[in-house]
Amino acid sequence: MTELTVQALQWTGTALKVLDQRQLPDTCRYDEYTDANGVAEAITTMRVRGAPAIGIAAGFGVVLSAYQHYSANTDGWRQAVQADMEVLAKSRPTAVNLFTALDQMASALAETDATPATLLACAKKIHTDDIAANYKMGELGADLLTGAKGILTHCNTGALATGGYGTALGVIRSVYDRQPLPIYADETRPWLQGARLTVWELAQDGIPATLIADSAAAWLMKSGAVDWVIVGADRIAANGDTANKIGTYSLAVLAKQHGVKFMVVAPTTTIDWAIDNGGQIAIEQRHQNELLPACYLTEGSLVSAWNPVFDVTPADLISAIVTERGVVLNPSEHGVRSLQ
Amino acid sequence: MTELTVQALQWTGTALKVLDQRQLPDTCRYDEYTDANGVAEAITTMRVRGAPAIGIAAGFGVVLSAYQHYSANTDGWRQAVQADMEVLAKSRPTAVNLFTALDQMASALAETDATPATLLACAKKIHTDDIAANYKMGELGADLLTGAKGILTHCNTGALATGGYGTALGVIRSVYDRQPLPIYADETRPWLQGARLTVWELAQDGIPATLIADSAAAWLMKSGAVDWVIVGADRIAANGDTANKIGTYSLAVLAKQHGVKFMVVAPTTTIDWAIDNGGQIAIEQRHQNELLPACYLTEGSLVSAWNPVFDVTPADLISAIVTERGVVLNPSEHGVRSLQ
Repeated sequence: MTELTVQALQWTGTALKVLDQRQLPDTCRYDEYTDANGVAEAITTMRVRGAPAIGIAAGFGVVLSAYQHYSANTDGWRQAVQADMEVLAKSRPTAVNLFTALDQMASALAETDATPATLLACAKKIHTDDIAANYKMGELGADLLTGAKGILTHCNTGALATGGYGTALGVIRSVYDRQPLPIYADETRPWLQGARLTVWELAQDGIPATLIADSAAAWLMKSGAVDWVIVGADRIAANGDTANKIGTYSLAVLAKQHGVKFMVVAPTTTIDWAIDNGGQIAIEQRHQNELLPACYLTEGSLVSAWNPVFDVTPADLISAIVTERGVVLNPSEHGVRSLQ
Repeated sequence: MTELTVQALQWTGTALKVLDQRQLPDTCRYDEYTDANGVAEAITTMRVRGAPAIGIAAGFGVVLSAYQHYSANTDGWRQAVQADMEVLAKSRPTAVNLFTALDQMASALAETDATPATLLACAKKIHTDDIAANYKMGELGADLLTGAKGILTHCNTGALATGGYGTALGVIRSVYDRQPLPIYADETRPWLQGARLTVWELAQDGIPATLIADSAAAWLMKSGAVDWVIVGADRIAANGDTANKIGTYSLAVLAKQHGVKFMVVAPTTTIDWAIDNGGQIAIEQRHQNELLPACYLTEGSLVSAWNPVFDVTPADLISAIVTERGVVLNPSEHGVRSLQ
């Protein structure tokens, strides 16, 4: 089992240390947060990103709130923590893990004997469960990849995006452990998670990686260099439709046209059982300044940008959804619900 | 007819002024070249880019060589000019306009009464013919777009890429003149020609433009916002297969899957009559430092990049090729050869 080489989040006992991923790979700097508002801001500003990591960070954000407001004598502190949970819930809209984690923390908070210590235990369990799920998915995903000749991945789904090891990147780590093979990573505009994070993480583990422009993926597929695309997910509907980083839908359409298989790797905390299909997923639009050169950001400018940072891949373009509870091939509602 | 708002190349009478497009949109600076080697370097380093503009620049490069080496009394100067033409021919491999222009200059050089003045006349004719072709293509292309609701374009194919007005962007200018409609531009990694040049050019002409990440094109198509993709070309084979900026092939596959039409706009100087299909086109691979963050460019780095800057779109994914000699719908060798 590969050791964890990098951590997006570190709990100090009194604070949450968050690796500022916006500064990678040049600078590896942790910011320390001691209240829920700070953690919410770290999520909104994408110091920490990746659906599972966002959920884990929010869990510790609730713990910090409890530390701040707890009183052994009254129940008023619970309302203050609930108010902070509402702030955390508004930090980003698309990844369902955020809401799944907050639901778990809300249940812990609702226990009559809830204390900061019991909430901390819950947050730590969210974290360790995620790591365990990732190792399990790594093995299950690698089992599907016997004989694969090359893999393309998108965005960052590694240790930096999760509690550790990674989802799609965990599968890539696992399969590479069994048999080295070429790994390609999309740059992943506009934040360049592929260029800044994914190839950096892989190199930390001694895995060679080749970066490509997002728009070169079709030409790479046509060259025959890859037979699998492997991605993570921010939210999966009950029928298997999958919201993930913008560009994922494009890759899925292109993969189908080139006979390349398409794997989604995500823990069951990423499945939104309450929605039947991907049409019900809120797609985050981020500010146009993430795309536009500064000179266009003037009053009356004729240049604008359309910046949806997620898209939805229909289930019928997905070859396999890999979760810690098992693999669903050619996903359908029946298959996905069998994991529930 | 829209006025020309920007010029990539200016002939001063004794020098070629080249707008350094790498510095746009922040800085609008011309570099002045007085010999062919300088012009070749301006092409290789992408101060000037775009298939037609490269051809025109090379034409003036030959003129500068003639100025330098001409002697009324001997024929030795022709060999010096030929040697410079070989340097120019090696400046970039994919755009055939470079070789078409050099062939025209070679014919002028071979005339018994060739002088720098006759070569200058030939270079100027290459330039003015290109502008005339662009205006003609603008009208022919716009004729196909009656009732279009939105257009997506890729890379830069405007005045900056040509003698003036543009190929695909000329069509967009022409159709917008007739009836304003939404125009979307891909960023176009790795050089960001869309973000830096295309939306800038459009804004100069008062045309609003919306920038998107390259990987968002499929999601844009799925939204129904565009019904045409319009691109230029660097080389078109006799059967209609088209080499163009990396990402073009991806857009063509995605367009087909979304019922979006796909138009290639290029003067007949971009058609390589000598090759039957796109498999024979040399695809330029540029240095990986165009994609890789600097920290990976170290000895022994496990991170590399694959950086093909063109791809080939098969003719069967193209709805129309628009040239100054006419339009070929659903291009085939028969249709393309009819333009010869």
